[in-house]
Amino acid sequence: MTGSPFSVTAMDGAARAGVLQTAHGDIATPVFMPVGTAATVKGMTADSVRATGAQIILANTYHLMLRPGADRVAALGGLHRMMDWPGPILTDSGGFQIMSLAGLRKLDADGVTFRSHLDGSAHRLTPERAMHIQYLLDATITMALDECTPFPATEREAEASMLLSMRWAARSREAFVARDGYHQFGIVQGGVYPDLRRRSTEALLGIGFDGYAIGGLAVGEGQAVMFSVLDASVGLLPADRPRYLMGVGTPDDLLGAVARGVDMFDCVIPTRAGRTGRAFTSQGVLNLRNASHATDDGALDPACDCPACTRHARGYLHHLFRTREMLGPMLLTWHNLRYYRNLMAGLRQAIMLGRAAAYSAAVRAAWISKDAAEGASIDE
Amino acid sequence: MTGSPFSVTAMDGAARAGVLQTAHGDIATPVFMPVGTAATVKGMTADSVRATGAQIILANTYHLMLRPGADRVAALGGLHRMMDWPGPILTDSGGFQIMSLAGLRKLDADGVTFRSHLDGSAHRLTPERAMHIQYLLDATITMALDECTPFPATEREAEASMLLSMRWAARSREAFVARDGYHQFGIVQGGVYPDLRRRSTEALLGIGFDGYAIGGLAVGEGQAVMFSVLDASVGLLPADRPRYLMGVGTPDDLLGAVARGVDMFDCVIPTRAGRTGRAFTSQGVLNLRNASHATDDGALDPACDCPACTRHARGYLHHLFRTREMLGPMLLTWHNLRYYRNLMAGLRQAIMLGRAAAYSAAVRAAWISKDAAEGASIDE
Repeated sequence: MTGSPFSVTAMDGAARAGVLQTAHGDIATPVFMPVGTAATVKGMTADSVRATGAQIILANTYHLMLRPGADRVAALGGLHRMMDWPGPILTDSGGFQIMSLAGLRKLDADGVTFRSHLDGSAHRLTPERAMHIQYLLDATITMALDECTPFPATEREAEASMLLSMRWAARSREAFVARDGYHQFGIVQGGVYPDLRRRSTEALLGIGFDGYAIGGLAVGEGQAVMFSVLDASVGLLPADRPRYLMGVGTPDDLLGAVARGVDMFDCVIPTRAGRTGRAFTSQGVLNLRNASHATDDGALDPACDCPACTRHARGYLHHLFRTREMLGPMLLTWHNLRYYRNLMAGLRQAIMLGRAAAYSAAVRAAWISKDAAEGASIDE
Repeated sequence: MTGSPFSVTAMDGAARAGVLQTAHGDIATPVFMPVGTAATVKGMTADSVRATGAQIILANTYHLMLRPGADRVAALGGLHRMMDWPGPILTDSGGFQIMSLAGLRKLDADGVTFRSHLDGSAHRLTPERAMHIQYLLDATITMALDECTPFPATEREAEASMLLSMRWAARSREAFVARDGYHQFGIVQGGVYPDLRRRSTEALLGIGFDGYAIGGLAVGEGQAVMFSVLDASVGLLPADRPRYLMGVGTPDDLLGAVARGVDMFDCVIPTRAGRTGRAFTSQGVLNLRNASHATDDGALDPACDCPACTRHARGYLHHLFRTREMLGPMLLTWHNLRYYRNLMAGLRQAIMLGRAAAYSAAVRAAWISKDAAEGASIDE
């Protein structure tokens, strides 16, 4: 074990501001990671992702092992070179997507056999194979292979699932090829059961990872349950390692999770919402498809400095979505990623000033009842 | 009549290098105008269009009068402000699209009544209305309303159509609101009949426009016939006015038309081809969907300086098209517009050096037999 690549710069309650050092640059936390599933953040060039202020992006092992294939990514120089993204990249292990393939997968103690959702071809993933694939992808942060415990699950089911994930975690750590500035995270499972979460955490700490992810949340349990699980489990993680809440979430989820000590997030919400015309703004969620925006000459969000807000009016954005032009999704994806980045950057600053709670309260207060008015529920 | 906004800088045979002055900036000719049908060049931000070196873009009156409507564009500050494109914009008159609405339109001497292809709603376009719409759009260059003569047409049909267009041209000129740096072009019709083209040109010269377009070509007659029509008619146009060949064409079409004295072009080919995976390169047309590119670590076009060529490998572009990611169309649109821009800029330089024929021959010679090999016929 080497020293931790992560240092906490400031704390405010349980909230932390920190820096994670990697081979591809430092990451200031708390941080949101845009999702680039198939080695591209949908609708964004690498330059435009950079322009949003993104520090690290996520790519999906499951999708990339199927297309174009890990060997091919390696032959094209790895994800960084292929995507023209020299910054840090985190890859998931494929477990989450494969567990979603109901009827197309078969789990055993050694790994999982599954059929591609694309062409039905058979594939197999073991902890060792998942680590090798992420090595070929040139992931800055590699995730251990886990089984994402479904929700709902009985405590007995959740326990069996967690124990399997912990055995896979040990094998994942064993198979990881250590390189300077490349990190590997373990994933805490245990469903909504505090005791299982505790045992999972202890198992992972016994193995020892560079960072720890909290998996198996945001799968239908709701924010209140998710927060209660965080309350019961985040404090068990070592203070000197980064904490990553996988697949979360809305801006409100992020504020609440950072207040509970989480440092890192990824989610498709800002990008997917952007593609369907929904914008996160300082005043709440807007649905640009709504006719109310058709003649609006004002900025999408006067508080935002992205091209969608500074170069165009709401009426033009409405027009782009009504005509199904690519530029609509492009501009709103850009905006939403900028919103998420600014939200996290502002929160980081607030933590360093000891004002995280006031910052979060002010952000929430500015979300006037637009969400209801626009009918823009965000439930991805 | 004021002085011409156009000056010829150099000639090489019939080919011309010139400058067209407008209220929104000067345009160096020969020039290709990217098409932004619905007030957006598909898949491109205004910044990326600028980055390709585009000097002027085209927008479509027909599409914009239906969505979002000319009044709404005006309320949003006009096309320049709405799109964030402060440079010159040319709008067509709507005639070409409406003539394509077989069965949905009814022509009379005064104008044309048609039904929207979107919702079947009834609309009417007259020369006066077409001019007012383009005024509301804030077009830098307004096109006269014409009937685009179909192909094939008998000489009698082509004559009647041309005579109608000439009456509409006179009314279009009458209805045009003159403003400094805003121009109006008349459109020569007459099908493939040299005598009709001559009579049409004489009629337009009698009215007097700021520039002259050649319409009714690239509608199925083939390159050889198109060039023969240009041979018989371009020389009849005044030397001190810009000449615009509407809806043309492939790189080879452009080289041949410039050699015959044409200055301006627009066409959906580079943008549409880019969206479907076809790239114009210094070596010919490539289809990035082809499996031969899957493992190719080389640049799309080593001679090009666009992001698709300098930041990524062919293998990644292939992956983006195979996975139907938006970034594929985005990057190839960018590349193709850059290719067209560089082709015209290089040709302009060659004209000024008196080497236009050699330049065109060298460009054509470098198009190795890729077109056939890639099965990438360009016939939009």
